[in-house]
Amino acid sequence: MHLILLSGGSGKRLWPLSSDARSKQFLKVLPKENGAYVESMVQRVYAQICNISDWESITVIAGAAQKELLELQLGKEVDIVIEPERRDTFPAIELACSYLYDKKNVSKDAVVAVLPVDPFVENHFFAKISEIETLINGSDADIVLLGVKPTYPSEKYGYMVPKKENDACMCDNRQVFDIDSFREKPASEEAEALIEHGALWNCGVFGFKLGYTLDILSDKYGIDDLSFENVYSEFGKLNKTSFDYEVVEHAKNIKAVAYNGEWRDLGTWDTLTEKMGANYSVSHDNIIIHSCANTHVISEVDLPVTVIGLDDTVVAVSYDGVLVSKKQLAHEVKNLMASNQRRPMFEEKRWGRYTVIEHTKYDDGSEALTKKLVLNANGQISYQYHKHRKEIWSIIKGTGILYLDGKKTEVTAGDVISIQEEQKHAIKAITELELIEVQIGAPLIEEDIVRLEFDW
Amino acid sequence: MHLILLSGGSGKRLWPLSSDARSKQFLKVLPKENGAYVESMVQRVYAQICNISDWESITVIAGAAQKELLELQLGKEVDIVIEPERRDTFPAIELACSYLYDKKNVSKDAVVAVLPVDPFVENHFFAKISEIETLINGSDADIVLLGVKPTYPSEKYGYMVPKKENDACMCDNRQVFDIDSFREKPASEEAEALIEHGALWNCGVFGFKLGYTLDILSDKYGIDDLSFENVYSEFGKLNKTSFDYEVVEHAKNIKAVAYNGEWRDLGTWDTLTEKMGANYSVSHDNIIIHSCANTHVISEVDLPVTVIGLDDTVVAVSYDGVLVSKKQLAHEVKNLMASNQRRPMFEEKRWGRYTVIEHTKYDDGSEALTKKLVLNANGQISYQYHKHRKEIWSIIKGTGILYLDGKKTEVTAGDVISIQEEQKHAIKAITELELIEVQIGAPLIEEDIVRLEFDW
Repeated sequence: MHLILLSGGSGKRLWPLSSDARSKQFLKVLPKENGAYVESMVQRVYAQICNISDWESITVIAGAAQKELLELQLGKEVDIVIEPERRDTFPAIELACSYLYDKKNVSKDAVVAVLPVDPFVENHFFAKISEIETLINGSDADIVLLGVKPTYPSEKYGYMVPKKENDACMCDNRQVFDIDSFREKPASEEAEALIEHGALWNCGVFGFKLGYTLDILSDKYGIDDLSFENVYSEFGKLNKTSFDYEVVEHAKNIKAVAYNGEWRDLGTWDTLTEKMGANYSVSHDNIIIHSCANTHVISEVDLPVTVIGLDDTVVAVSYDGVLVSKKQLAHEVKNLMASNQRRPMFEEKRWGRYTVIEHTKYDDGSEALTKKLVLNANGQISYQYHKHRKEIWSIIKGTGILYLDGKKTEVTAGDVISIQEEQKHAIKAITELELIEVQIGAPLIEEDIVRLEFDW
Repeated sequence: MHLILLSGGSGKRLWPLSSDARSKQFLKVLPKENGAYVESMVQRVYAQICNISDWESITVIAGAAQKELLELQLGKEVDIVIEPERRDTFPAIELACSYLYDKKNVSKDAVVAVLPVDPFVENHFFAKISEIETLINGSDADIVLLGVKPTYPSEKYGYMVPKKENDACMCDNRQVFDIDSFREKPASEEAEALIEHGALWNCGVFGFKLGYTLDILSDKYGIDDLSFENVYSEFGKLNKTSFDYEVVEHAKNIKAVAYNGEWRDLGTWDTLTEKMGANYSVSHDNIIIHSCANTHVISEVDLPVTVIGLDDTVVAVSYDGVLVSKKQLAHEVKNLMASNQRRPMFEEKRWGRYTVIEHTKYDDGSEALTKKLVLNANGQISYQYHKHRKEIWSIIKGTGILYLDGKKTEVTAGDVISIQEEQKHAIKAITELELIEVQIGAPLIEEDIVRLEFDW
């Protein structure tokens, strides 16, 4: 079976740690089993998947902004398809399917399973996914879903309702359900009745034959050329909607396999902190929690954080902001911060990472922006120049090679490099290299950067 | 009458806004009556005092670290006596008295009133203080105190107990009390009984004839030379204790005048936020408070701060740290942060202000520290050099005059100045001048700075 992993959007419910530059699935806050270090949601799921050898291929479909982080966290060899724009799960899955068909020569009869990149589940969740292939091949099902056995009448999830009423006590022993209909976010009482009827939570795992989804492209959208390049160029014409809505709800024959185990969407501070264990901070000894119960602090800034007398609270501190919230209301941060237009202050890059440590906008329209850059050993910043911006680099740690005015020089802690407008520059770290970059000039827009080819 | 204002210590109960570099009385968080801007506690009290013309002189006694801020906030003309070290109120008041006697030629028969620099009180509090002079001159009292009419049986204050039981209903009409004894922080029940008896809160206002306190120096400490210089040099021999304990409690004849009005010690976030009115932030539009009652945010950092679902909570954010606390427990921050040894990250200076925006200590013992400096127009940083530290200045706004290697040059936004170890340097702002300073070198200790004389 072939796997398609859907790498979702920014996850603004985990602000201020998640941002446009860093979706929630990349936050390294989950303790690894040995407790020695932390991993991100995507790293956890990918490791669980790779523990099972049933897959013929694994493909990740993601936005362009996520490519560097996916490679950083999962390794360079991971197979990533980049969407031309973010347009919900239906177009994303269709593009990934055309990639499998065209670039990986996967047959239309082959079975594909799609799953989100970040559910928090037990290992046997993935064993259940591998059952989908047998079921598709051995039945007339168009789509086979993985259904999670509900543990409480949640009002937040989608339910898949089986055709015949199931004896609730028997559910655990039944492996396959014929699905009659779907119900999104029912009120608690209805949810109880649904569970009574044997309904399962929809966790966004879909299995189908590759041809089933490709036929939608030709039948509904008239896209007969199923080459990846063509589907990529037609991407904007596909409905901006979910795969559930566009495909699953119109399928004639839907079956589900049941997974009975832990399944969580760690997309809010409430659910995430439950799995975090201890607090997380770049500088652990700076966190003081006094007279608090079930309170978590997550800090990415080297600042003391002291919390006194607050229960069930999350305090999250990053260079992008400070959130203090009662845990059960923390999901509201998404809407509250919806209009927040500030640039991300922290980004992980292929070459290392940077933090914006100061940003001032002046009345005359000019700006000054100060960054701390940390380049990994051998990390290199692309060869570029700026039309309207000066940059001053003060090397504060390590050694590297500077390429400026067509000349290579070794630079080391204490050196200052003053880069004028239009001056072409690049730097490559020899050892880990840290520098303070002061940008001065007209509004510091991305379009001001002109990237050039250069081979060290 | 002569006034002595006691400028107290760091006020760690208001961490992270107060610090060793900035005592609580200097925090500009109180709304002015016209609402147009904010003022600090010391500014409010000083303005109230200056509204009354009964004073022959006003002298502030303070620690050396407070001199610049006092002059900044009260004006250059304010008369400040600097203690050689901080040693509690008794030595401080004695030193100030010798200053009045020796430097201001105040007679031993003149009446002096001492008061803290930061009580939050109504204007008629100061009219009451001016009554002390008449009372001292017209009675046999050694000490006359100002007593605050209690409004509830506080367990946190000191009580002064009158000699005869007072009819509680009559208190308001009695102006003068003979004080029998003092009681510190009684339990609530005892406090109720004391109030029933007519006791008043001790608010740290003492009146006496100058000779009364000077005699203690000669009688108890054998200091006969009452010159300011001599008392200054003998300062370390004076008991490190409060004026209440060392002087007031041993006085034979103590009277009190009663003040019936608002009196608050705004020394905790709980009490201070009550008087702040709105939230306070360097960037107001960055604060979101949602589903909260009686919750305050105070932020000095240009970061969005979002608070959800927490009542009676204070969130205080500065470059020194983040405090999140239930208001009524916020005073505990003092003990919790007692062992906090981090350097202050923000300081107001005579020439302007600076913020530490990045500080890294490396394994090899070296450090890198990045500051943003804002020099007021005409502000100048003293002529100096460093033995073990390089500095790189990137001017990001304004123009100024640099003095380097014995040469004056005009510098402006975009200029970079690289200052090597032992290189003498100074800068003076022409317009408001902003620069990013990167310090690189051995541990960045204060002793590394060598200050020199220089006349612009």
